[in-house]
This record gives sequence, C-alpha cells and structure tokens, in this order.
Amino acid sequence: MIITLTTDFGGGSPYIAAMKGTMLRINPALTLVDVTHDIPPQNVLHGGLVLREAAHWFPPGAIHLAVIDPGVGTDRAILAAEIDGQFFVAPDNGLLDPLASTASAIRVVRLDRPEHWLPEVSRTFHGRDVMSPVAARISLGLSLSELGTASSTWKKLEIPRPIISPTQITGCVLYADSFGNLITNITTEHLAAIARPDAVARVLCDEHLIEGISQTYAEHLPGALIALIGSARQLELAIVNGNAAATLNVSAGQTVAVTF
Amino acid sequence: MIITLTTDFGGGSPYIAAMKGTMLRINPALTLVDVTHDIPPQNVLHGGLVLREAAHWFPPGAIHLAVIDPGVGTDRAILAAEIDGQFFVAPDNGLLDPLASTASAIRVVRLDRPEHWLPEVSRTFHGRDVMSPVAARISLGLSLSELGTASSTWKKLEIPRPIISPTQITGCVLYADSFGNLITNITTEHLAAIARPDAVARVLCDEHLIEGISQTYAEHLPGALIALIGSARQLELAIVNGNAAATLNVSAGQTVAVTF
Amino acid sequence: MIITLTTDFGGGSPYIAAMKGTMLRINPALTLVDVTHDIPPQNVLHGGLVLREAAHWFPPGAIHLAVIDPGVGTDRAILAAEIDGQFFVAPDNGLLDPLASTASAIRVVRLDRPEHWLPEVSRTFHGRDVMSPVAARISLGLSLSELGTASSTWKKLEIPRPIISPTQITGCVLYADSFGNLITNITTEHLAAIARPDAVARVLCDEHLIEGISQTYAEHLPGALIALIGSARQLELAIVNGNAAATLNVSAGQTVAVTF
Repeated sequence: MIITLTTDFGGGSPYIAAMKGTMLRINPALTLVDVTHDIPPQNVLHGGLVLREAAHWFPPGAIHLAVIDPGVGTDRAILAAEIDGQFFVAPDNGLLDPLASTASAIRVVRLDRPEHWLPEVSRTFHGRDVMSPVAARISLGLSLSELGTASSTWKKLEIPRPIISPTQITGCVLYADSFGNLITNITTEHLAAIARPDAVARVLCDEHLIEGISQTYAEHLPGALIALIGSARQLELAIVNGNAAATLNVSAGQTVAVTF
Repeated sequence: MIITLTTDFGGGSPYIAAMKGTMLRINPALTLVDVTHDIPPQNVLHGGLVLREAAHWFPPGAIHLAVIDPGVGTDRAILAAEIDGQFFVAPDNGLLDPLASTASAIRVVRLDRPEHWLPEVSRTFHGRDVMSPVAARISLGLSLSELGTASSTWKKLEIPRPIISPTQITGCVLYADSFGNLITNITTEHLAAIARPDAVARVLCDEHLIEGISQTYAEHLPGALIALIGSARQLELAIVNGNAAATLNVSAGQTVAVTF
Repeated sequence: MIITLTTDFGGGSPYIAAMKGTMLRINPALTLVDVTHDIPPQNVLHGGLVLREAAHWFPPGAIHLAVIDPGVGTDRAILAAEIDGQFFVAPDNGLLDPLASTASAIRVVRLDRPEHWLPEVSRTFHGRDVMSPVAARISLGLSLSELGTASSTWKKLEIPRPIISPTQITGCVLYADSFGNLITNITTEHLAAIARPDAVARVLCDEHLIEGISQTYAEHLPGALIALIGSARQLELAIVNGNAAATLNVSAGQTVAVTF
C-alpha cells in the first residue's frame, strides 16, 4: 500500500520522519512517497492544487496524507475521504477542496474515533498523532465509516476561475511551481474555446506581453519569457532555464489575459 | 526491516544514495527512511537529540544509522548498540549519548570485524564503508556480538540539564528545530514541579519576556512570540508563522528561565 | 526491484512524485531511491558523473532513471541501456556517456515503442510520460529489445582527461560535490604513476598551492585548504568543515596541477 505525504514542514524536517515512523509502527509494509514538503507555509490553496496534480499520477487505492495545518489545536475538523478511488487524510481547512470540488465520486468522514489515533494526542502535531495513524489504518483496510462520521460538506476555498468572453480569457496565476514557472488556471480546454486557426495568441501578464504559445522550452533561447502548455495541460509562463516567479516578481493571483 | 538515516550531509547529497545502495546490495528488502540530512555540520549534540526524538516514533527492531562523523579516519571507534529494543549504528563521538544516557536497557559493541564491512574501506567515508554494511547485516539478523566486542562505555556529551529551585527553572535552548522553534531542556515534568494553579508562568529568554505558556499556535496572531509545550513535551519558544531562531538571533545554549 | 532517480528538478519538487506515482502504477512493488535532485540545472556532465559514481554502489539489476533533459520536446532520442549489469533510462544528450564510455559491457536501445509509454505524452515532461513507464517496465522484466531499437552509438561528452608527464599531472575540477569539495579528474592510479617515495606532492589550483595529499579531514584544523583522496578514489580539494567551491570561487574546468 502506498501512502504519500504533502506538507509545509520544509525538506529535511525530522517531523516528517516522526509521521513515517508512526505509520510504519501500524503497518510495516507501507511504501511511503514524498510528494513535497516545500508547500509555502500555511498556503492551503497551493497545497491543495499540488496535491490534486500529484494524486492524479498515483494508482487507485493510493492514500494521500496532507498536513498543512495552521489551525492545529483548534476545533477545526480532520477529514478522511475517498475521492475517485483514492484516499485522502487532511485537516478540514480547504486542503481537499481543489480535488473534492472537481471529483466524480466522493465520500467524506470527520474523524471522531480516538481509539484509532495515538493514545496521547498533542495540541500541536495532529499530523503525527491523528492523521498518520488514520492513514496507516486505511492502508490496513479499515473503512472510512470505522474512522469517522459521514459528512456531506467540507471547507471550501476560493479557487479562482477564468472569465471567458468570445475574444479573451481572463485568468490568473494559481501558484509558482518548483522551477518558478507560473501555473495559471487557464487550461487547454479554455484555449480551444476561443482559439482561431489564423491567429497567434497574445498572453499578457502584468506588463509582460508574450506572442504565441510554445510547445517546448527548447524552441527558445535561455532567458526568453515564454507561454506554454505545461505537463498538467495548464497555461504556464516560464523563463527558459530561469525562474519566472523571481525574475518577474509575480505571484499567485496576478491576472493573465489571453487574446487571439 | 526499517533502517533510518540521520546525517549532516545536506538534503540532496548523492552520498546518501551511496549508503542506501550499499545497504540494498546486502539486503534488498529494506525499508529506508530519511530522518534528516540537515543536522548542522558536525553538530553531534543536535544530531543526538534529533535522533533520540525521531527514534521514539519507530517500531521495536528499527535500525537507526547516524553519520555525523567529523573524526572519520582517526582512531575514534564506531559503535553498534541495542537501546530499548531498537538498534543504532554511529561513530563513538557522543551521538548516541542522549539516547543511551536515558535508556532503560542498553547493549553496546565496538565494531571490529572487518569481514562485515565493505572489502575496501576509505579513510573519508566510514558511513558508507563500515556503518552501512553493519546496519544492513543487523537487518539480516546478525547479532551485535558477531559485529564487535562488547563495551561498557561510550563517549559522553555535556547535555545541559535545567536547575530547579522552588520558584524558578533555569534551563537553556538545546537546538532550533526545522521551523526555527527554540527547543529547550525544560520538560512538562519540570514545569509541573513548580507550577502554581493561581499563577501564570513567565518565561525569560535573553531580553524577551513571555507571559504564559500557550497550548497551540493558533491562539495567537502571526508574528507573536510565544512559549508552548511542543509535540515532544518540551518547552519551546516560537514565533507564530515565523522563525524564532532567526528573528531573535538566539541559538543553542541560550539561558531560558521560567518563574511563576 | 530498485529504481533510482537522478534529476535537476530541485529537492522538494512535486514533479518527482509524479514520476514515482507513474512507476508505482505500473509496478507497485518497487523500491524507489533518490540519488539526487540537485544536479545544477541542465548540467549534463555533472549529472552523468554523479550517476556513474552513485550507480557503482547499487546491486546488479538496479535500474537508474536520469532526467536532465533540456532538449525535451525536440527530436533528441531517449535511451535505455544495460551497462555492466545495471539498467539506465535517460535522454540521449550525453548523460550516459561517463558510464558508457568506461563500461565493460554495454547494450543500448533507442526508445521507439509508444505502447510502453503513457497513453498521452506531453511535449514538456518525457521524464514522466516516457522514461518512467519504461523504467517501470524494465523492473517487470521487459527486455530492452521490446522497448526500442538497438543502437551502437550514443551522444558523447567532452569528459576532460588529465595530461600526464613524467613529473606532472595536469587535470581539472570536474564538479563541486554537495559539500563544496572540488572533485578532480585525477585518480589514485594517475598519482601512483608519478609519485616518488621521497617527495611530497604539491597541488596547484588557481593561485592556491597545497603541500601534501592528506588521508583524512581530521588531520587538519577547521578552515584549512587540503588536497585528499576522496571516497571515490579521486583527488579532491576541500576546506575542512567548509565549502571550497564557494570560498575559492572555483568551479568545473579549473586546472589542477600535481607535481612531486
């Protein structure tokens, strides 16, 4: 059984190992995979978007543990969910919303069976004391209904959606990825809706105008600012061999407009 | 069988993979878990404290390989130990002392059976050439007595202990954790010994006075300097959503006093 | 089966997890090991040298996936190779040349069977869409001839080789390792060819002259610039407890001369 980990702890944090040890005590046969521990601190939207993108590549039945948890120790709930054939354990702070709000099939429980947690639960590290044991027990075959009480809702996030007119898409930067590429909320489907075969796309981000949407980085010289369709089928802005987020000083929320 | 790794090599060092490959050549069925590779270079006390805290969460029988080894190539010994049901392999430079000095049951050998090491041992990387093969052989069931000669001692460290008077605990910062939280040597047991139900704790660190010991980060606004009981039951100083070590410019050894 | 990963994605990149998930979907029983993700961006020579050094420590049959791929989306080929009993998957940009050019036994194919790739192949991430599935299929026992067409050549790199005269070796820095130690192309074999028992080596790098070749770091005080034989039997320049690359401002290509 596979359990992945997504956190804002920072690579190299030994607190990640405390979660892994806790899970291995319950199920020594686990395959543990780090998605990333470099989510910007407490950035639930960024974490939720990365989790959705990463989970896509894992097999059915994979279990995803996500701990971006600024509300630890408060009365925020903790969720376990089955979403399109995979399992997720995360605080109920919106982290699961990017996935859940676009899912075909979803079942959510609020964790309320402390007999499946560590015997002693700290006030500051539910990732280790509650979420890790629950993820490990799912890997052993416990059903969601044994772990919590069914819930029909979860915390929603404001996930910005592009506005599409006959001649323009107005979207925004969702986050900068690990290369500094600026990932937008404009997808290949959005572009297909307004594309004209005889016209070249014009992409405007802040005061930067890019002519054309590229297919590959290698078409351009190092240092060029380009727009291209990234590997997750989203429009992204990138500097070839460089870091667009740092160079352009652009971050999440920045408007990106596409016209033809 | 689980083998964990704790080093000061820095995350991303390919020397970590050389150790993992060496172990997998001996036992391909290993589960390898990184505790951290970001121990400050050659900081044996920090490494030993992190190792003790991390090992706590792993199952009985887990094997912990720790390589913070400024004396590599000198005549410092290398140890294998069974401590409270887990196994440890490390240079004899104090790295095991935080664990060993608080253990219930401990058995230590000095490695002196080169037939269990790599055939060729470099002068500069015993983590790969001696310690990794030995850890892998423990995972295959070799006993400590097959790997070395029993030893009743090991290198001790100065682990600072708090001074407790009827009205004050005078302790110190042990290390900054991966968030920059300042972990002290003052535990919940120490605090219980002098706490008074009608009084609020006052925590003094350098010129910073903190009133009260918090239960959670979320009680406070971002940027607040707080004292709280961390997830390892030790008093820690933290800046909510921030890095206390960097902001206060405080490091290991700094005195922390608690009065009621 | 073991699959290792070597990339320039940066530690913490979730794109690494996308490759791991893709491989685990094909073979859930894999043991995945990170060699490093901190190869300097697009530095194929550095990547190839680290891959060769790391692979050395892994068992026969291990599979090594290396993705340093500035030409992704162009018509550069992708290779799978069996080299001295291990398997390698990488773009044909020279990444395999350090290994292949010094191998005893080598068999290379160019990948051209899309039925073994992901159904949809992006233009920007062949590491995930082509190379990961192929590596996973090798782990399931597919032969190279099922994955591609035999090739007798591969892209070569300029790997600098030292010039050896009766009294001097003139080599260079190949790369800085993860500690900032400057790894040269001068090996113990080269040194043995000109060493004289009654003479001390003199190592000159830029304007820095080092007298003698040390056996261990611990012979010297912190801050000392030393030359020593590293754990891969290559001459390296190091600053004890420091970072030679940063302090000396020296990088790959810098001439290093040894006289006796």
